[in-house]
Amino acid sequence: MLRVFCLLISLLGCTLVFAQNGFQVVPLGVKGGTVDGNLSAYMLAPAGSDAYVCLDAGTVSSGIIAAVGNGAFNVNAETVLKKYIKGYLISHPHLDHISGMIINSVDDTVKQVYAMEHCINVMKAHYFNWQSWPNLANDGNAPALNKYRYQQLKEGIEMAVKESEISVRAFPLSHSKPYSSTAFLVKHGDEYVLYFGDTGPDEVERTDHMKRVWAAVAPLVKSGKLKGVFLEVSYPNAQPDRHLYGHLTPRWFMKEFEVLAGLAGKEHLRNLNVVVTHVKPVGNNEETIRKELGAANNLGLRLIFPEQGVKFELK
Amino acid sequence: MLRVFCLLISLLGCTLVFAQNGFQVVPLGVKGGTVDGNLSAYMLAPAGSDAYVCLDAGTVSSGIIAAVGNGAFNVNAETVLKKYIKGYLISHPHLDHISGMIINSVDDTVKQVYAMEHCINVMKAHYFNWQSWPNLANDGNAPALNKYRYQQLKEGIEMAVKESEISVRAFPLSHSKPYSSTAFLVKHGDEYVLYFGDTGPDEVERTDHMKRVWAAVAPLVKSGKLKGVFLEVSYPNAQPDRHLYGHLTPRWFMKEFEVLAGLAGKEHLRNLNVVVTHVKPVGNNEETIRKELGAANNLGLRLIFPEQGVKFELK
Repeated sequence: MLRVFCLLISLLGCTLVFAQNGFQVVPLGVKGGTVDGNLSAYMLAPAGSDAYVCLDAGTVSSGIIAAVGNGAFNVNAETVLKKYIKGYLISHPHLDHISGMIINSVDDTVKQVYAMEHCINVMKAHYFNWQSWPNLANDGNAPALNKYRYQQLKEGIEMAVKESEISVRAFPLSHSKPYSSTAFLVKHGDEYVLYFGDTGPDEVERTDHMKRVWAAVAPLVKSGKLKGVFLEVSYPNAQPDRHLYGHLTPRWFMKEFEVLAGLAGKEHLRNLNVVVTHVKPVGNNEETIRKELGAANNLGLRLIFPEQGVKFELK
Repeated sequence: MLRVFCLLISLLGCTLVFAQNGFQVVPLGVKGGTVDGNLSAYMLAPAGSDAYVCLDAGTVSSGIIAAVGNGAFNVNAETVLKKYIKGYLISHPHLDHISGMIINSVDDTVKQVYAMEHCINVMKAHYFNWQSWPNLANDGNAPALNKYRYQQLKEGIEMAVKESEISVRAFPLSHSKPYSSTAFLVKHGDEYVLYFGDTGPDEVERTDHMKRVWAAVAPLVKSGKLKGVFLEVSYPNAQPDRHLYGHLTPRWFMKEFEVLAGLAGKEHLRNLNVVVTHVKPVGNNEETIRKELGAANNLGLRLIFPEQGVKFELK
């Protein structure tokens, strides 16, 4: 009898560990600049979990209010901010990726901020410095009020996100040299999501940063463990390469996925979830970019155009 | 005949010069933090004019979009941003007063930024510095792209706002020592509006900064030339003085207006337009502050609670 019981517990354990169902995403802001209440920020959690990380934080509370209004959460906005967001992952310190986090920090709870060294240095020097904003962090100009705790990510080294079931690995990106940005490979159990901050194409930036990310995730694409990729497209194809400012067009976006296809096999990219981020809403650019991506999607990527406050799943 | 014609022209000239009708205001953002798509920013122009200044710039484009939606403008959002805003007047460099201007600067036209020395120094060092944002200004870390031009205001000295009929005088304020903020006295012809950035009460800050502003405008209140005052109330009365962080409660707000009444005469404050700014939307604070102000309004101020994108007049 005891043996049967142990077997049952063991089986149940396996089920709990492996019954993974992808991720859920609540975009708090989706635009690549200009619209100052709707800037890059994506809440991400394992499906069914309320323990989210927030990938970049251009807009926070306005996005949470929109999401609550859309029924993405069953609790109020204050609870989402204070309890559901367990940590911020900041790709780079440009204001459109960080302004919301800073402005909401006064009303927030103790929280971790995960970023690479350069990004943390800019936060210390230029944001949480008592000149631009009170220093609510745990380092930098005194007094450090110690509400937000910097957690420095090092290239390729996995770090657990506190109070969540998620861990993260960081990869440096080039965002118009000499400025850098970050890609985050988020892991839950045996499932992954890849988030790119702003990035130029390797060919234009003259780096191999994106290729190194693609090489790292190619095995996960092959095995079906990579449940989604967030990648930016800031400008339509008409934007000349010399004016990319460390961003992608639909043509460069697809060229970069061709690099991944070369490493992982084209067939494994069919129906891969790809969230298109950071479109600059100037003139008809949003429509143009959508058309240009659709026309060039020979790989059969499942392109997702996120909307502020509208929850979706990555399975 | 010629004399009659000259007389007519002369009379018409007088009419054009003196037919003043107060000011119009389009709030682009009204909250004192937290809601990151609705932060302090007020477009102000002489009645009937499309040449506005923007008093602080926490939220810009989201506010313009809301205003266009409400019929506050007959042109599109791009035109309002690029053509109608002739210059920014920045009271202090906290992110909730400046984030919108910086984020929209990439898509903006050449524009003047008026501020006192300390504020300009922070913009140069911490915002338009290529780390937090490309340097779109005309000074600071190279290359300076020269789209925004710093115009340094000196205490009490009137400066014309380019491409408008407005001029401005600046007064320093204390915003939780040693941090400073600014009051702007905006002039059009013989009419005035007074805008306070964030400020603590003189008694708590142990300064006479507010009193000096009140002394400067008292004659304008007596003569009916001051068409409106923008003043902040961040917290309800329950907030203890030691936790004001350089802000006002309804009690301190009214105490400060009593100082003005002492200088200008109580009777001249009756029906004075007073725009209540910077309320922090935490819990029921907005309702509480509105009630506390109403209950303490012995002076008979005409209190205006602005809403994002809803135009109003100050006559």
